[in-house]
Amino acid sequence: MDTMYWKDNTLFLLDQTKLPIEVKYVKLKTYEEVAEAIVSMKVRGAPAIGAAAAYGMVLGVMGYRNDQNLEVYLKNVYETLKNTRPTAVNLFWALDRMWKKYLEVKNQTFEEIANALLNEANSIFYEDIELNKKIGAYGLEVVPENASILTHCNAGALATAGYGTALGVVRAAFEAGKLRKVFADETRPLLQGARLTAFELLEDGIDVTLICDNMAGYVMSLGLVDLVVVGADRVTANGDVANKIGTYSLAILAKEHGIPFYVAAPYSTIDLNLTSGQDIPIEERNPDEVRKIGDRLIAPPQVKVFNPAFDVTPAKYITGIITDRGIVRPPYKENIKKLFGGK
Amino acid sequence: MDTMYWKDNTLFLLDQTKLPIEVKYVKLKTYEEVAEAIVSMKVRGAPAIGAAAAYGMVLGVMGYRNDQNLEVYLKNVYETLKNTRPTAVNLFWALDRMWKKYLEVKNQTFEEIANALLNEANSIFYEDIELNKKIGAYGLEVVPENASILTHCNAGALATAGYGTALGVVRAAFEAGKLRKVFADETRPLLQGARLTAFELLEDGIDVTLICDNMAGYVMSLGLVDLVVVGADRVTANGDVANKIGTYSLAILAKEHGIPFYVAAPYSTIDLNLTSGQDIPIEERNPDEVRKIGDRLIAPPQVKVFNPAFDVTPAKYITGIITDRGIVRPPYKENIKKLFGGK
Repeated sequence: MDTMYWKDNTLFLLDQTKLPIEVKYVKLKTYEEVAEAIVSMKVRGAPAIGAAAAYGMVLGVMGYRNDQNLEVYLKNVYETLKNTRPTAVNLFWALDRMWKKYLEVKNQTFEEIANALLNEANSIFYEDIELNKKIGAYGLEVVPENASILTHCNAGALATAGYGTALGVVRAAFEAGKLRKVFADETRPLLQGARLTAFELLEDGIDVTLICDNMAGYVMSLGLVDLVVVGADRVTANGDVANKIGTYSLAILAKEHGIPFYVAAPYSTIDLNLTSGQDIPIEERNPDEVRKIGDRLIAPPQVKVFNPAFDVTPAKYITGIITDRGIVRPPYKENIKKLFGGK
Repeated sequence: MDTMYWKDNTLFLLDQTKLPIEVKYVKLKTYEEVAEAIVSMKVRGAPAIGAAAAYGMVLGVMGYRNDQNLEVYLKNVYETLKNTRPTAVNLFWALDRMWKKYLEVKNQTFEEIANALLNEANSIFYEDIELNKKIGAYGLEVVPENASILTHCNAGALATAGYGTALGVVRAAFEAGKLRKVFADETRPLLQGARLTAFELLEDGIDVTLICDNMAGYVMSLGLVDLVVVGADRVTANGDVANKIGTYSLAILAKEHGIPFYVAAPYSTIDLNLTSGQDIPIEERNPDEVRKIGDRLIAPPQVKVFNPAFDVTPAKYITGIITDRGIVRPPYKENIKKLFGGK
């Protein structure tokens, strides 16, 4: 199932807010529609957001009407897409890559510029699948035989252009016959684990057991988990990791139980501009995401809510970061620089 | 708001599955209806279940039809109520107390027996409120000035005959002007934190902020929590505590952040017959509690689910157990025996 595809000058985007009940693609024809789809989380997952934003730039240039300077216009498209969500760095990485491409070709004809940007967006999209397969291949070496892997949120095919990061490791282990089963945290408030991870693993015939987030510690204490693998929204120069809220708790629980805790992410998730996780902006979302499930109220409507969408896991809790260039281990600062210093 | 009350030979029970959307009392006239209400969690919370079961015994004796031996009949009532839920010990404690009363008065007239059992059930109910006020008073000494308290599930007025155990400590702190605010874990799958704790604290004008269970670690890391207080479904002789699923994870997170972790429970929750938490039967409930919220499916209907309703927190993670007889601290085995050896 494609997270998104480009056809007839349109971005067809799988509406992930409707899964698993409904499999429906929305047709996006303007960059504003792409921005809205990112904000409302029709598309989510750091690499998938990056790819969608890249296509958003293409829709932007295609919507140019000659009534203003192209560069000024396109910078506004860039800013609109950039201001959708603050935490995942792949969004900014993809937009910057598109902008760099624009600067390269800006003196060519409009058609050539538009084509170059479409090619660049396609590259971002298709390269991501290859990156994830490499992550899977590298990750395989830390997966024991007959492994039970616990994961959080959805760092799967649906969070990327395909195959997945954390679930890329799961898929590689499955293909290699090393996987016994997966525990999927449901991941409140938006239930990406229940709705997306359970869905895509079932589609692939992978043995998956759904648990509530607060059951992970108990499941570990029963000896049912060999390995935790999660995705990332941003990795800073010192190895700190921003990821879906709950990742930090999970890392502490893994440490307490002596269970290896791995993060899987492509190079585009690594942000060498930030020295530590304390510098990562953490998005807070609408309190109604917690007060309601769908349209159904599950709490007093007037109750105060704290709804951070992400947390930061300090590097000290992380056994290794599985990337498309290999597994980074402590000391992270040195080893991240070694592998990604030239990015 | 009363968790339950007795009137016109009927147990009026607040249907907690409907809260906070609807405040509705069901009228229970048979012991089978009480058993069903416990199984379906219309009433929940260890002390409240105990009180409801005691009234169930009263309804049982009132339903006696003279067609069999009263003791045989009543033993069957006892067994039916006992087999509703396995983890909370207060259920068995209350039923045993009712049975002991029956044995005391069994040679009296039927009316005298029925009256004695009703009096005993009333005693269990009203004593529980007094126990909780004592828990609150003792708990006050571990609450710092201007405290922010995090709690899990609902160990409040709604989980007891009134005032609450963990929320008894919260209420005592509020009344003493020592409370700044409460963080309430929503407590999946049945959302007792979102539906019940948020509701009853708002009713009392206490500042409460609702979070998802997976946010607790992040909230602690931000320095927003001074103290964790939770209830208990069973405390064993060595100080291990069975409580709502997620309590164990919370205790580990508290330890990692150097935050005191307290359990609040009356003497009726202490089970000296079990030497350690490993002996406590942990109830597993219907997978649809996780797959659905209300009637709304939030996961693929065919996905496997693990749904333990409780977990066990080893004594080593617990700073103290706040009881109606004082605060028990390590070494738990010795100190529990000292305070509760004669129970």
